[in-house]
Amino acid sequence: MADYLPTAPYRGTRDFLPAEMSVRTQVFQRLYDVIERYGYLRYDGPVLEPVEIYEAKSSREIVEQQLYTLTDRGERRLALRPEMTPSVARIIAGNAGKLPFPVRWYSHPNCHRYERPQRGRVREHWQINVDVFGSDSPSCETEIFELIHDMMAGLTASPDMWVLRVSDRVLLNAILTTMVEVPADQTREVSALIDRWEKYPQDTLAQEAAELGMTEKQFHRLGEILSAGDALLDDLPGEAREQSVLMRVLDSSARHLVTFDPLIVRGFDYYTSTVFEVFDTSPENRRSLFGGGRYSNLVGLFCAAQIPGIGFGMGDVTLMDFLGTHGLLPAPRSEVDVAVIPVDETLAQAARQVAHDLRQTGLRTSTPLEYRKLGKELARANKSGARVAVIVGRDEWAVGAVTIRNMVTGDQQQTPTDAAPSVVTTMLG
Amino acid sequence: MADYLPTAPYRGTRDFLPAEMSVRTQVFQRLYDVIERYGYLRYDGPVLEPVEIYEAKSSREIVEQQLYTLTDRGERRLALRPEMTPSVARIIAGNAGKLPFPVRWYSHPNCHRYERPQRGRVREHWQINVDVFGSDSPSCETEIFELIHDMMAGLTASPDMWVLRVSDRVLLNAILTTMVEVPADQTREVSALIDRWEKYPQDTLAQEAAELGMTEKQFHRLGEILSAGDALLDDLPGEAREQSVLMRVLDSSARHLVTFDPLIVRGFDYYTSTVFEVFDTSPENRRSLFGGGRYSNLVGLFCAAQIPGIGFGMGDVTLMDFLGTHGLLPAPRSEVDVAVIPVDETLAQAARQVAHDLRQTGLRTSTPLEYRKLGKELARANKSGARVAVIVGRDEWAVGAVTIRNMVTGDQQQTPTDAAPSVVTTMLG
Repeated sequence: MADYLPTAPYRGTRDFLPAEMSVRTQVFQRLYDVIERYGYLRYDGPVLEPVEIYEAKSSREIVEQQLYTLTDRGERRLALRPEMTPSVARIIAGNAGKLPFPVRWYSHPNCHRYERPQRGRVREHWQINVDVFGSDSPSCETEIFELIHDMMAGLTASPDMWVLRVSDRVLLNAILTTMVEVPADQTREVSALIDRWEKYPQDTLAQEAAELGMTEKQFHRLGEILSAGDALLDDLPGEAREQSVLMRVLDSSARHLVTFDPLIVRGFDYYTSTVFEVFDTSPENRRSLFGGGRYSNLVGLFCAAQIPGIGFGMGDVTLMDFLGTHGLLPAPRSEVDVAVIPVDETLAQAARQVAHDLRQTGLRTSTPLEYRKLGKELARANKSGARVAVIVGRDEWAVGAVTIRNMVTGDQQQTPTDAAPSVVTTMLG
Repeated sequence: MADYLPTAPYRGTRDFLPAEMSVRTQVFQRLYDVIERYGYLRYDGPVLEPVEIYEAKSSREIVEQQLYTLTDRGERRLALRPEMTPSVARIIAGNAGKLPFPVRWYSHPNCHRYERPQRGRVREHWQINVDVFGSDSPSCETEIFELIHDMMAGLTASPDMWVLRVSDRVLLNAILTTMVEVPADQTREVSALIDRWEKYPQDTLAQEAAELGMTEKQFHRLGEILSAGDALLDDLPGEAREQSVLMRVLDSSARHLVTFDPLIVRGFDYYTSTVFEVFDTSPENRRSLFGGGRYSNLVGLFCAAQIPGIGFGMGDVTLMDFLGTHGLLPAPRSEVDVAVIPVDETLAQAARQVAHDLRQTGLRTSTPLEYRKLGKELARANKSGARVAVIVGRDEWAVGAVTIRNMVTGDQQQTPTDAAPSVVTTMLG
């Protein structure tokens, strides 16, 4: 017996067969449409990036455990991008002199992370990235939040299916230092602890807090604060309220777009103030769907200019899980609109000619590649989702006519060949 | 002075700024549309593949010199895919039991090759791949050739700008063995020599031929044959004519779609009969634009089933060069259709509301993220390509009206706010 190579894709990566690809394409096309309606322009960058751009500001988990790296023949250390934000910061920095800030950009890259494959986690995923660069205005937050609402509506998700939870690292730092009395140089470690708050049991968290030097009283107080939600905002020190960009959004008419939640921290080191995550409200899927935040200094890795950014990344895996859970996945598109079928092999060229005319009007049209009996071809046409069949018969063709069959009703009619495109178009509605 | 990380993309890869990305997106959307009109279904696969799938049947040049490889933490040897055909063969093999052959598939992957960057060559490119699996019929060749004609027409290229040159390895082998008396076990090496025929000086070729054991007479005869073009077909041995799938296309009404040229060989080892390449006819750009062929045994690496394939890959770099040379690149799309501009900061929320209604009708609409004077915002709107501005003024807004300005003519009119979407839509035509 011959040795065959395995047909499965590399562990944690995916093949998209046409039906799955059609769903993916439709979902993302809807998102592109919504995002472009806000004036965001699509850009793209390479899969391979210098390792250094992640080492500086991404999360330690990504750099130490999840990066796919290689060294090229010129001894350059490269990584398969695990996320898009460092790339877009690099591109913005490289073109800062000619860009009309603020700019609105989006992209749809494939990103790689060496994860243990499980529900919601793969090693290559496709991620929509949306960012605004060059503005500190809370209008950015408001627009991004509004855009997220429109994106979710574009996917036919109703507002009760998901929630946009927001926080601000500036506010959190103020909360920690003034209300929990965490020393300023420990707010980062305590924030990381809060990031794990909903994923670990209280015992574990308490132990970690103790290791960070927090007293039991502080830990108890932290727990109270984290569950206080909105009410917390009224107790905040005035200075923190003034420094927070998010606070200005929460004090505006955009308040209804979000839920304030101090548990939102986000894992990336580069976020500096606003952070947000969208969660599924379904009990089956309590995970974060996607998220983002404001990063004031990331572009500063690449140039002297101060160019703040705010944005989010939305991955296909968690998104598709969400749409599946809520029954919102679109049906795969049919293979074709029309099948043109010659009744014998000598009419193959005639069928191709008819098909060509139908395609000129934009109709997705197939002709058989191998000859089979009419009944078999009609069955295949039906299976491919064709709603109309054009049958090319010998005697008819000789007098310049074809038969057009409505595959849904079974009705058929003879038509002059020239008129076929308009008759078919009418039949398809 | 601080040390900044470089802003240039990794050598041989590209950043696509929005204007370039808009051109790329439009060009490929046109191609998707044409391909889908033939009933081809889009699929996708991972960037990372096991190295073994290239070692068996791709070209030696790719495997030995151009593959980006890495070893993951599980000691798996992986490559960044240099081309899509081995991946799609793997996917077809893995799903052979449930596919309704023949199937028409296409994809648009990013592929990596470690090339020396130069005109037409980069290290990451985007390639449209079109394939038919599961049929030996010459109808596949005919359809693929017709599709190529429609794709080029879809890009507004006229037929004099390019030529589709075809050959058949079965015919070439017959030519070499019967007309040049090359031993059967040397046809592969001589074919590789022919593949280089137009790229190297005659002296070099003569020397290589001598090294392969060819006599001067044989080399001379080979030269005559390779420049004979069509005329050669009449001299072919009957047996070769009968075995060749391509010959049946050349003998059919599809003859006019192609130019027979025995110089076409293609570098991949997996091609077994029909091979073809599209060339720019412009003297500036005599390179192959893209090409493909028929591969009978590639799926056989992965399973016992005999599933022949035929297809081609069309890369973005040479394609964009071609379109640029012939002045066929589409203009980048405008950033937005409409700019909604509040005359002072307190009207920002009003402007967002107007913008939201415009977006609901599908219009790409921006509002300012930072407040600037009306004149400056109008200038910016003009620069962004907005053809209409909706100006939200204080007194008007109070009475439920806005001003709609035609950015092309400068005409403006007051309109009830509710009517803005329909007035703007009409103005945009």
